[in-house]
Amino acid sequence: MTNHSPNTGSETETTASEAKAANTMWGGRFASGPAEAMERINPSIDFDRRFWREDILGSKAHAEMLVAQGILTAADGAAISKGLDEIWGEIESGTFTFSRALEDIHLNVENRLREKIGDAAGRLHTGRSRNDQVATDMKLWARGATDALDAELKALQKALIDQAEANVATIMPGFTHLQVAQPITFGHHLLAYAEMMGRDRSRLADCRKRLNESPLGAAALAGTPYPIDRDRTAASLGFDRPAANSLDAVSDRDFAMELAAAAGICAVHLSRLAEELVIWTSQQFRFVKLSDAFTTGSSIMPQKKNADAAELVRGKTGRVLGAFTALTVVMKGLPMAYGKDMQEDKEPLFDAVDTLGLCIQATTGMIADLESNPEAMRSAVERGFPTATDLADWLVSALGMPFRDAHHVTGRIVKLAEERGCGLADLDLDDMKAVHQGIDRRVYDVLSVEASVRARTSYGGTAPDRVAEQVAAARARFLTP
Amino acid sequence: MTNHSPNTGSETETTASEAKAANTMWGGRFASGPAEAMERINPSIDFDRRFWREDILGSKAHAEMLVAQGILTAADGAAISKGLDEIWGEIESGTFTFSRALEDIHLNVENRLREKIGDAAGRLHTGRSRNDQVATDMKLWARGATDALDAELKALQKALIDQAEANVATIMPGFTHLQVAQPITFGHHLLAYAEMMGRDRSRLADCRKRLNESPLGAAALAGTPYPIDRDRTAASLGFDRPAANSLDAVSDRDFAMELAAAAGICAVHLSRLAEELVIWTSQQFRFVKLSDAFTTGSSIMPQKKNADAAELVRGKTGRVLGAFTALTVVMKGLPMAYGKDMQEDKEPLFDAVDTLGLCIQATTGMIADLESNPEAMRSAVERGFPTATDLADWLVSALGMPFRDAHHVTGRIVKLAEERGCGLADLDLDDMKAVHQGIDRRVYDVLSVEASVRARTSYGGTAPDRVAEQVAAARARFLTP
Amino acid sequence: MTNHSPNTGSETETTASEAKAANTMWGGRFASGPAEAMERINPSIDFDRRFWREDILGSKAHAEMLVAQGILTAADGAAISKGLDEIWGEIESGTFTFSRALEDIHLNVENRLREKIGDAAGRLHTGRSRNDQVATDMKLWARGATDALDAELKALQKALIDQAEANVATIMPGFTHLQVAQPITFGHHLLAYAEMMGRDRSRLADCRKRLNESPLGAAALAGTPYPIDRDRTAASLGFDRPAANSLDAVSDRDFAMELAAAAGICAVHLSRLAEELVIWTSQQFRFVKLSDAFTTGSSIMPQKKNADAAELVRGKTGRVLGAFTALTVVMKGLPMAYGKDMQEDKEPLFDAVDTLGLCIQATTGMIADLESNPEAMRSAVERGFPTATDLADWLVSALGMPFRDAHHVTGRIVKLAEERGCGLADLDLDDMKAVHQGIDRRVYDVLSVEASVRARTSYGGTAPDRVAEQVAAARARFLTP
Amino acid sequence: MTNHSPNTGSETETTASEAKAANTMWGGRFASGPAEAMERINPSIDFDRRFWREDILGSKAHAEMLVAQGILTAADGAAISKGLDEIWGEIESGTFTFSRALEDIHLNVENRLREKIGDAAGRLHTGRSRNDQVATDMKLWARGATDALDAELKALQKALIDQAEANVATIMPGFTHLQVAQPITFGHHLLAYAEMMGRDRSRLADCRKRLNESPLGAAALAGTPYPIDRDRTAASLGFDRPAANSLDAVSDRDFAMELAAAAGICAVHLSRLAEELVIWTSQQFRFVKLSDAFTTGSSIMPQKKNADAAELVRGKTGRVLGAFTALTVVMKGLPMAYGKDMQEDKEPLFDAVDTLGLCIQATTGMIADLESNPEAMRSAVERGFPTATDLADWLVSALGMPFRDAHHVTGRIVKLAEERGCGLADLDLDDMKAVHQGIDRRVYDVLSVEASVRARTSYGGTAPDRVAEQVAAARARFLTP
Repeated sequence: MTNHSPNTGSETETTASEAKAANTMWGGRFASGPAEAMERINPSIDFDRRFWREDILGSKAHAEMLVAQGILTAADGAAISKGLDEIWGEIESGTFTFSRALEDIHLNVENRLREKIGDAAGRLHTGRSRNDQVATDMKLWARGATDALDAELKALQKALIDQAEANVATIMPGFTHLQVAQPITFGHHLLAYAEMMGRDRSRLADCRKRLNESPLGAAALAGTPYPIDRDRTAASLGFDRPAANSLDAVSDRDFAMELAAAAGICAVHLSRLAEELVIWTSQQFRFVKLSDAFTTGSSIMPQKKNADAAELVRGKTGRVLGAFTALTVVMKGLPMAYGKDMQEDKEPLFDAVDTLGLCIQATTGMIADLESNPEAMRSAVERGFPTATDLADWLVSALGMPFRDAHHVTGRIVKLAEERGCGLADLDLDDMKAVHQGIDRRVYDVLSVEASVRARTSYGGTAPDRVAEQVAAARARFLTP
Repeated sequence: MTNHSPNTGSETETTASEAKAANTMWGGRFASGPAEAMERINPSIDFDRRFWREDILGSKAHAEMLVAQGILTAADGAAISKGLDEIWGEIESGTFTFSRALEDIHLNVENRLREKIGDAAGRLHTGRSRNDQVATDMKLWARGATDALDAELKALQKALIDQAEANVATIMPGFTHLQVAQPITFGHHLLAYAEMMGRDRSRLADCRKRLNESPLGAAALAGTPYPIDRDRTAASLGFDRPAANSLDAVSDRDFAMELAAAAGICAVHLSRLAEELVIWTSQQFRFVKLSDAFTTGSSIMPQKKNADAAELVRGKTGRVLGAFTALTVVMKGLPMAYGKDMQEDKEPLFDAVDTLGLCIQATTGMIADLESNPEAMRSAVERGFPTATDLADWLVSALGMPFRDAHHVTGRIVKLAEERGCGLADLDLDDMKAVHQGIDRRVYDVLSVEASVRARTSYGGTAPDRVAEQVAAARARFLTP
Repeated sequence: MTNHSPNTGSETETTASEAKAANTMWGGRFASGPAEAMERINPSIDFDRRFWREDILGSKAHAEMLVAQGILTAADGAAISKGLDEIWGEIESGTFTFSRALEDIHLNVENRLREKIGDAAGRLHTGRSRNDQVATDMKLWARGATDALDAELKALQKALIDQAEANVATIMPGFTHLQVAQPITFGHHLLAYAEMMGRDRSRLADCRKRLNESPLGAAALAGTPYPIDRDRTAASLGFDRPAANSLDAVSDRDFAMELAAAAGICAVHLSRLAEELVIWTSQQFRFVKLSDAFTTGSSIMPQKKNADAAELVRGKTGRVLGAFTALTVVMKGLPMAYGKDMQEDKEPLFDAVDTLGLCIQATTGMIADLESNPEAMRSAVERGFPTATDLADWLVSALGMPFRDAHHVTGRIVKLAEERGCGLADLDLDDMKAVHQGIDRRVYDVLSVEASVRARTSYGGTAPDRVAEQVAAARARFLTP
Repeated sequence: MTNHSPNTGSETETTASEAKAANTMWGGRFASGPAEAMERINPSIDFDRRFWREDILGSKAHAEMLVAQGILTAADGAAISKGLDEIWGEIESGTFTFSRALEDIHLNVENRLREKIGDAAGRLHTGRSRNDQVATDMKLWARGATDALDAELKALQKALIDQAEANVATIMPGFTHLQVAQPITFGHHLLAYAEMMGRDRSRLADCRKRLNESPLGAAALAGTPYPIDRDRTAASLGFDRPAANSLDAVSDRDFAMELAAAAGICAVHLSRLAEELVIWTSQQFRFVKLSDAFTTGSSIMPQKKNADAAELVRGKTGRVLGAFTALTVVMKGLPMAYGKDMQEDKEPLFDAVDTLGLCIQATTGMIADLESNPEAMRSAVERGFPTATDLADWLVSALGMPFRDAHHVTGRIVKLAEERGCGLADLDLDDMKAVHQGIDRRVYDVLSVEASVRARTSYGGTAPDRVAEQVAAARARFLTP
């Protein structure tokens, strides 16, 4: 998938000599080379080179600690550091040649380092293993992903809150079951999504907090006899602490599953908003107008202006949820410690994060650009007897009727208005009295849409003053640093 | 599923007169009764009566607030409270008759209340709706579920830590790829699961914290004109605060999705331990012996002692993960606010929580009862050249060889031992010297399994002293209140 | 879940003496009884008693074969057969007492048989095992489920085709991206669902065909030394043949996964129709009216008439898809042959089948009862410039314009009409000529909705004559026996 | 994912002028260009260029039909055909420049055709739409995928059958619950997988048959007024018939969901075999030896020979199952007809098919290359009292004991042998008589492993003669053309 393309244009090569080199990597006891299917199924370099930055940073932190602990000479440490910096430059500028025969980003980097500085490169691997190295890289990447998604969600919240502010008093029908229920304001509706995104950010923050323990130094699975300082490497890499159990450190992929779950729930939220945008832009609703930037035309029906971006956001929920399925199936029933199955944690997580990021951005663009259509909303709200609840409430408070009875009387009055083809406020007082004798002229005060909205002043309610307060509160909770 | 059975033995009835009554509930405008398929697909009372406690508590808190706000008279409030207490007693004692015609727990309780106290029952529904009521009930239930699961996980951690303490120095093979890699201790291995359960509990705690906002008073979707006090009901029900947006309050099911995800990840952890128990109890491994309580025999093969409980725990991962799929599919693409689709949040979540709880308990029992078999573990660890890494490390530290070269030399020595059919420590010095001239007699100090384990003293490593420290730390982190 | 309730009202009991009895079942070597968690996690009788009929039929076929092969005496065979018939009667009439201590339906039946006929009961188990017995029962049940679902889908197709026939010429907007695209007929739209259900039935038929191989006689996993006749039992039970490999026979759960997948795809189809019903019954669309039987009112908004049944059908897609997740997770990575994990195949499959059956029935009811609203459809179709494509086609055929150019010209004319706030047919000829000089008066012949629909006579197209042909063809393909 | 890379090395470019060109494609009414997020979320060319062959073949079939029907001139038809052939050559040779601004493969090809042949290119689109075009392309691709997977599965079956033949009489323990149950032969075990693959192929064939209806000519959704011949294009493209309903034709994605489900079930099968390979190659089992080609070493533990390919096959089950989740979530609740969400059908399906294909190939390689270790198998089979069932059967047949009693007696004898630490055949007759007086010397005839295997001659059983028959039958059923 294009989202997966690593941050570099350089291509991966497999040459015969490299294949032989890789063979050598695995030690001296392998007689024959890998079969062709193995060559395709085994290497991870095509996707794990994505975290080359994390890999190099991890190696630098490890080398610096080895020197500090006296395990590595200062000269070796300096050579390693300089070599790694050069490799960083090569990858960043696209001149690095990745090799499939060298399997993964770790061996690609280490092999290049050896070319540059010779034997000292081999000493970098003292006191660590690819098992803790890949777990460290992946966690650093996932931590960065939570930060990036948080920033993108914040931008979406800003777009929602800005639109909400502009529409604090824009009356629209509130729907339940896609039936007009009660009048609300468009600003109030949009703020509900700001709340959802708030929980999404909170989930990402919890995931970040929980994953932020360093696997580095767990080595293959059992720890190492070298006098390493795991606290030091944890701190250099911004981890809160080293992971407490070396087996767990190399075989934990909770962070991938949890991040995928959080991404999936967020994608579900976006799919709900996307569905609403698709419905709202239909010719039957016309509640909002999306900008040309997020709609497309039809190759055969020139009059169409399709909410393609919204549909794609809705559809892409599938692959984000698919990632959680994929990751949990990978981990189900895996004995400890590291198993190669765990290599399958990367592509689903990369895809889930990339897809979600793109969906958030597209949604932000759609929300920022949309124009509400107050006339269409207003006309819709009047079609659905939306003040029926207000009538029922009035029967309770003004006439002291039990709520369920008031509900029943209201139902009969609604039926009457429906038969007449008019709104509730258009009924004669006598008609209403025929249903219930106690009704009097004051009832007309609660039958208007404006009155209904204005009256809903309970905390979190749709009264414009309340919504304005919520806008301010949301700005404070979500947008201040 | 039997797990779903509500906490009461009373049966649900549907009578003709009730069907008519329900019809009346929906208001006066419905002419004909529900079709037979509708009668089966629509009611939720068969499963939502499970949270009858939460429903009654919510109603009591609401009534008490209505009185405090002067919306309800003290007399009505007292009658409602007394009536609800009686209903609690009836349900608890199994004498309450649930009715499908009354659809759900809310109408069942309210209808009974009306039978008991007459019109005042109708006034209880002032300023709320079934939409905020069901969200409140479900959140209270989910909150209780997180507490129950937390307690069960704590008990499992205790069993793991106790066994770990008893096996701090029990040497076993550490596996990667199910191949013997390095010697570790059984206590160390078990503590890795205590870490996983620790993250599971932390995820549940985060889920609990996030869901703990009260929907009550959001009414149908827009808030209410009654001067209710949402802070008061939130506080009475133990919520941290009222939810800030009334549309979000009634259409949010994040807590169900998040709890299912957390349950799914925990189930995956249990499936890993279960897989290990199945493998460890095979005749080929014999690492542990499960008690008779958690194994079964075969109807045709009398010698079998099957780890059925472990297999069931492993298998039940499926339905817990299926619940996340179910819940996210329900919510995907749902426009706001409440839709009847959301009724489908209950059974998957109930099943996920019940299943996970049962799996944790069964696992706790298995772990608490198991006996390790140090002889079998010891014999296995010697079969796999597990000190090869120690040899490589020695070549690095004693002879100053670059790690990758040491790795290569070690590979050749392992091959030699394999050809001879002996362990590394059984090789002659001359044989090793033939591979690399620099090797000397000191090498034998690192080739024993005990030396290998003892040497891995890095933080989180497998050295018995380290594991003992981890046992103490785990007790402090996980088991102290 | 209530759908799971077995076809019998009798309750399951666990008594101390039964627990001991069960212990005895597992053979003489177990010292202590099962722990309490084990008592809850291990037995399957609460759900597997659902296939008591299949279990008894399988036993009768097996006994009859054992007699025919001379393995069992005729007297024993007769006693077994009579005893099983009596047990059938007891279960059917609800007098049978199921016991959890006896774990599953197989031991419950066998134990009762022993009570009735003594030692001969034990001889029934000659040449079989619970492993092949449960696989046989489950396949027989699944086969019955495919037949039942097929009949239900056929009834839904009939409702769709009947409605289609009544609406062969009812013009409505055809949507793409929920935007009005081209006029179609409502009958044409409904027939698309008849096609989907046709594929669903075909998938069920393929699943039935594939599962119809008998596991009976595979015994525990390896076959049996008794001279049994597997062809004979296969034939008595309506299987096409015995399964060819005894290990595969007892460890195959493909039929469960495949049936769940087919059910899931069907549920997705129903969710699409349900979504359309929800949209179509909104006040903004009003394309159709559902009968009161499948809608409900609101407890607080008396004017609402919610398409609850459609929403439930849409929501229940989740649990059907969850079943596929559950079943595939159960089977992932399971070594052969039988493992207790496979007990987890039952509840997800039962729930998927029950849920889907109920959803089909509810959908059938909704479709059979619905009334189309031709005026609302007609008014909607005119709002969306739906004959723009016809205009473009006319430019191609009448003026010889390349299609892409015609598309461009049409787009400009649509924009013009949009600015004027009128339909395409309402534009002056001069206005159109200003966009493209070659347009002449004949263009008005293609701008009407009726002309557009009538013109689409390609095979499978929306012209009423074509749709009428499709109605007849669908009746022949789907509804004739 | 690298698997996704299209069959061409040419890169996709987006230039400013192309962006403008695309804008023009959508018709004349769009004022501003797409936003940056839209540019990334909307185009499908990065993945849909994968079916450039299908797209060109579909266009050629369509053009040829248009000429035959007199809708297109012969000259235009010839120009189109020649132009398309040239484009085929350009793409095949990697000289074609794909453009993101042109969104998808359809517009990329058509735009290039226009560059080559001018206005006639525009006439190719007469009587079709991108909606039916993409459905046609995707179905043709999926059909090819079923054929490719079928061939790969056949190769795997051949490897399994060949190994089975070589191991018809190789005795190994048959496991249930991973406990030694009864002796079987390795050939018998392998043939169980040949059965599974047989069902997988059958599922693919059914999927192929069901998808093989042509959407071409359904146009946007309603059919077309042009006198096209859908039977003709269906036949040219190898479809069995045109799809009967034009709305269904463009909005059906059953084939993607069904193919993903079939792939998922097959992946589950492979995961089971992979799990067995991982277990069998552990030092505790050593039942088989994988070739070096499919194993790797460790960077830190030189003695390891990890079954990486098997672990990757097992792990990749996740993403194949994730594809089914993704696709069904995409389609859930989508109103008809085409929606942009459906663009999300491609990447999950491509990934599922590519991943499964690779997994099959890797498994084929592992099976073809593996060497069984009869000594290890033999030694394992003797450790588990595997002839206990034979003893029980003997008690039934020789002594006329009811099966359940025989089971009980056997259990006590097994316990005795376990206490003595010996095999069943090593027990003294007197010891056995102490358990049950009736046992005599003949019992030793059934206590040997060979006797046990030889005796299981029921159809599908493990007796070597039976397995040899199954090998021959499997060859005939699965490998003959």
